[in-house]
Amino acid sequence: MSERALLDQLIDALRCLPGVGPKSAQRIAFHLLERDREGGARLARVMAEAMTRIGHCDRCRTLTERERCAICADPHRDAGLLCVVEQPSEVVAIEQATDFGGRYFVLGGRLSPLDGIGPAELGLDRLEALLAEGVVRELVLAISPTVEGGATAQFVAELATVQGVAVTRIAQGVPLGGDLDALDGGTLALALAGRRAF
Amino acid sequence: MSERALLDQLIDALRCLPGVGPKSAQRIAFHLLERDREGGARLARVMAEAMTRIGHCDRCRTLTERERCAICADPHRDAGLLCVVEQPSEVVAIEQATDFGGRYFVLGGRLSPLDGIGPAELGLDRLEALLAEGVVRELVLAISPTVEGGATAQFVAELATVQGVAVTRIAQGVPLGGDLDALDGGTLALALAGRRAF
Repeated sequence: MSERALLDQLIDALRCLPGVGPKSAQRIAFHLLERDREGGARLARVMAEAMTRIGHCDRCRTLTERERCAICADPHRDAGLLCVVEQPSEVVAIEQATDFGGRYFVLGGRLSPLDGIGPAELGLDRLEALLAEGVVRELVLAISPTVEGGATAQFVAELATVQGVAVTRIAQGVPLGGDLDALDGGTLALALAGRRAF
Repeated sequence: MSERALLDQLIDALRCLPGVGPKSAQRIAFHLLERDREGGARLARVMAEAMTRIGHCDRCRTLTERERCAICADPHRDAGLLCVVEQPSEVVAIEQATDFGGRYFVLGGRLSPLDGIGPAELGLDRLEALLAEGVVRELVLAISPTVEGGATAQFVAELATVQGVAVTRIAQGVPLGGDLDALDGGTLALALAGRRAF
């Protein structure tokens, strides 16, 4: 009776999941305990391993439990094409949706001097060293078009230009299925300015 | 390279959580890995323990890692008052919302002969033995008012009546904040039939 009931501990621990409040945590705990103990046990095992073993690729900084991630280690990828993204989740999104055959570099954030996030925190020294190898011929910027994202993209672009690497940026415009009425003016202006032959 | 990436395994394992599809699983995995490894590690530890150690109280059948749950073990609870519910989650809900000071009995489901759920599966032999101890004076039915729930309540009530235990049922009517317009006819009819002095 001295320690807290294990069920309460589980409900409490489940609240580290994003968007899970006390009610959902309860629902999840009862679901696992009454309907899917095997799934819960497997999740616990994999999660414990993932939390301790997954680190960052020493080349592209994406999440991986190896020294070098599967994409960086794959000799069939085009080493001349490097896509710069903010987060590891964006690598997954691009891999799932496109046939981009190059490699990536993950910044892990955006330049934000007020929060103490400068070039070093984004691994830009490592990116510079990577570009200096002379293999990358095109750097594709896939950074969110926000104020901080824009400043970050600018910084990365200059770094690449100095090394003689061509810089491109993924297209901005109307999203698929997007309703022009509901679109913000800035995007609409970009879409119009970036019009192409039909 | 032989085994699947740990990150993919984590995303896959997270799908055992109720309502979590591939997109949410990804979001949760990245959130834990990038923002809350400590919370994730703690969750993994508690979950592993919960999945193996939590069983059922040998008196009331609710979930607990002990032989007897905290409520059954508490000498200050009124042993004369026994509330019969379907699921352990309902014990928690009643404990959180009310000042019910009695004990519980958890059926773990409803009578459903077609699914092979009979009196034995609901532990009704154990309930009978408990009532036969002669301590319980009132059995409160808190079973969902569905067809199967109704049959189950009927069965439990008869079992109690035979042992000379008074049987009550939690009130049915308009829920708090309920809009009469939106209420189903059955509930409205029950609420009207069960009207009380104002």
